[in-house]
Amino acid sequence: MADKTQDARQGRDYINTVAAVAIAPSGTGEELSEYVAQAVGVIRESGLKNETNAMFTNIEGDLDEVLRVVRDATLKLAAQGHRTGVSLKLDIRPDARDQMERKPQLVNEILAQRSES
Amino acid sequence: MADKTQDARQGRDYINTVAAVAIAPSGTGEELSEYVAQAVGVIRESGLKNETNAMFTNIEGDLDEVLRVVRDATLKLAAQGHRTGVSLKLDIRPDARDQMERKPQLVNEILAQRSES
Amino acid sequence: MADKTQDARQGRDYINTVAAVAIAPSGTGEELSEYVAQAVGVIRESGLKNETNAMFTNIEGDLDEVLRVVRDATLKLAAQGHRTGVSLKLDIRPDARDQMERKPQLVNEILAQRSES
Amino acid sequence: MADKTQDARQGRDYINTVAAVAIAPSGTGEELSEYVAQAVGVIRESGLKNETNAMFTNIEGDLDEVLRVVRDATLKLAAQGHRTGVSLKLDIRPDARDQMERKPQLVNEILAQRSES
Repeated sequence: MADKTQDARQGRDYINTVAAVAIAPSGTGEELSEYVAQAVGVIRESGLKNETNAMFTNIEGDLDEVLRVVRDATLKLAAQGHRTGVSLKLDIRPDARDQMERKPQLVNEILAQRSES
Repeated sequence: MADKTQDARQGRDYINTVAAVAIAPSGTGEELSEYVAQAVGVIRESGLKNETNAMFTNIEGDLDEVLRVVRDATLKLAAQGHRTGVSLKLDIRPDARDQMERKPQLVNEILAQRSES
Repeated sequence: MADKTQDARQGRDYINTVAAVAIAPSGTGEELSEYVAQAVGVIRESGLKNETNAMFTNIEGDLDEVLRVVRDATLKLAAQGHRTGVSLKLDIRPDARDQMERKPQLVNEILAQRSES
Repeated sequence: MADKTQDARQGRDYINTVAAVAIAPSGTGEELSEYVAQAVGVIRESGLKNETNAMFTNIEGDLDEVLRVVRDATLKLAAQGHRTGVSLKLDIRPDARDQMERKPQLVNEILAQRSES
């Protein structure tokens, strides 16, 4: 298994990934915050850079690390037996860094330049 | 048309909606920011409350207003002839307000209480 | 309004769009099928080409027609007062046609050729 | 690690998961099918039940098995150095089975009953 895993990564030690993830139960009533907080708690304890907004929690790190945290946060609800829904979007730029800050900055800079001209 | 629309809304004047939307072209090269900025520009000019993070732009308002802005921002790229991808997630709570601020606040409060106890 | 709309479309009569949409309530219990069926019913009555699988209903048509059906199907649940979640993914290729059939066919053809060689 | 993993699953051997996943590169041109086919090829070789439609490939199996296949299919593109986008939606019902067939069947049955009555 370890060999196959190494193979799949084609020798890359680090593959930069920004994730947006939303994890919530179905069938536990309309107020989901208690459950969402359990999943967000797992993400915060992971040590990976993260940021929670109204719709998703963004996480940045190596692809396998990010997927491990998404899995652990999902299991926090699913292993209690709840029907659980997960929405995940990944933007993987293998050799990039600090995309969580740079992506919105770049959009702001482009829009600022445009309004000046 | 107006009658049918009114019918579908069942007399509700305002249906609170928080959207997370990501709009980007395919096939224009790896650097997408110039195009993403065009779509975000349309959203900012809409007058609806909005906030851009690394993965999505969040918008809050009435369902039909939010969908109108998503459509206009999408057309900004698609009407230029680009293959365009859109990811949209909506959280609709018809009678709620200020969910863009309250949702992450509530998660933070729950996690803060937990770490105190 | 009509003028602004026309403007945004930049004179394009038809902008081909394939959508995958999932619409479900929160807080109504774990069995969602009754509600999902109401939303799917609206989509089937729309006259647009559509297909329901385990996770999404795919729809193909002009961008504005597709968005209108997504809106009507969403309102079917939201206007009853339910907290409603919507996941939507659009693949817009303005000048393409019949993408709902052609996209999976093309993937199958590529994989078939590969296994022959 | 193995212990922590076991812990997170709280003794559950199998946690039923239906996934819809879309994996595609950015910046390789408008025709994505060659790359999409590479990712779908990895999923088909996994042995898990799967089905490709115009927008997503659906997969059903245990949560950890499904996430492993999503990871391997993603790496197929990302480890080549491509900027890669992934959209993933999970519906986890720990004790359910055969949801890939049953979910659309149930919707069809509900709509059929309704049109009879």
